[in-house]
Amino acid sequence: MANHDALPLVVLTEQFAKLPGIGMKSAARLAYHVMSMDAADVQTFAQALLNARNTVHFCQCCENLTDQALCPVCEDAARDKSLICVVETPKDIAAFERTGEYNGVYHVLHGLISPLKNVLPDDLKIRSLIERVRQGGIKEVIMATNPTVEGDATAAYISQLLKPLGVKVTRLAFGLPVGAMLEYADEVTLYKALENRNAM
Amino acid sequence: MANHDALPLVVLTEQFAKLPGIGMKSAARLAYHVMSMDAADVQTFAQALLNARNTVHFCQCCENLTDQALCPVCEDAARDKSLICVVETPKDIAAFERTGEYNGVYHVLHGLISPLKNVLPDDLKIRSLIERVRQGGIKEVIMATNPTVEGDATAAYISQLLKPLGVKVTRLAFGLPVGAMLEYADEVTLYKALENRNAM
Repeated sequence: MANHDALPLVVLTEQFAKLPGIGMKSAARLAYHVMSMDAADVQTFAQALLNARNTVHFCQCCENLTDQALCPVCEDAARDKSLICVVETPKDIAAFERTGEYNGVYHVLHGLISPLKNVLPDDLKIRSLIERVRQGGIKEVIMATNPTVEGDATAAYISQLLKPLGVKVTRLAFGLPVGAMLEYADEVTLYKALENRNAM
Repeated sequence: MANHDALPLVVLTEQFAKLPGIGMKSAARLAYHVMSMDAADVQTFAQALLNARNTVHFCQCCENLTDQALCPVCEDAARDKSLICVVETPKDIAAFERTGEYNGVYHVLHGLISPLKNVLPDDLKIRSLIERVRQGGIKEVIMATNPTVEGDATAAYISQLLKPLGVKVTRLAFGLPVGAMLEYADEVTLYKALENRNAM
């Protein structure tokens, strides 16, 4: 099939199609949309891409993304620095912050151990977590990876490394989501909810 | 809710969210993805945005998008220049080209008349179409706008302008799509299929 689009438009479509969750049809739609944008707005967009990639880096302390030396959470004097919540991605931090109930700090792994996807412990920010705990002053590390095979395996692996350091390691509670119907709960969730039942 | 993301990341998320069909959650995912891209790839992406916006413009003849003076279709000596297919967007050209059956040229309106959305005839590339027909050598103009209220109204409006110029104006056939089940056809389509029935 001959392509009858202008070449720069084809190139831009291919660039959009490389982004996760964007197929060729959506990519073409986005590229056409860019054509209809003000030149100044396209300039702003391109600059935002470069700025984000070039000025954002990992927080020295918790590996969260930031454009400062420390991320806002690590910099906040009011946060409890002795409590670390270990998460997979910076997006998970946003989820915890939305609850407004967590006052500790975080550690971002930037992935989960997955031999099948060729992600090994050394590819994650595990070493900096161990180092942080080793420096002392940490009372508890909460493993807050997703309740999936990879999330559980990563939590178990890190837990083994942390326990010899004499720190308390905990895992998020798994059970029925609030508002769920027993009828529709999957077996594993229901089993977890039963196993972890609490006194009333 | 305080935002705990780095500012350049927030800015980039907002830029992605301005694109059609991308909500705040997808935009955040895309912005995080950009963080994990090679700096060189981000540079390529940003450059593709600027290139597309700055080098692509309307074809002098048919208003299709191109980075040359004429688009590939208008430049092709083998195409029948006396037959013009009027479409709403450049994407529609790609759809016709995929059939491999159309050998005429095109005219892109870049929109449809829609008083409710404040799109009036002067906002579309109608004047250049009339001028093109007025210059002579055109035998037939096929109105190939979508079979919607706005598509039909635009086709009817342009048809009224073209007929006094003595050119044949036609409209795409509407009926059952090939492979469709009668059972699931909507009434209007079925009515059109009945109305436009052909001898066997």
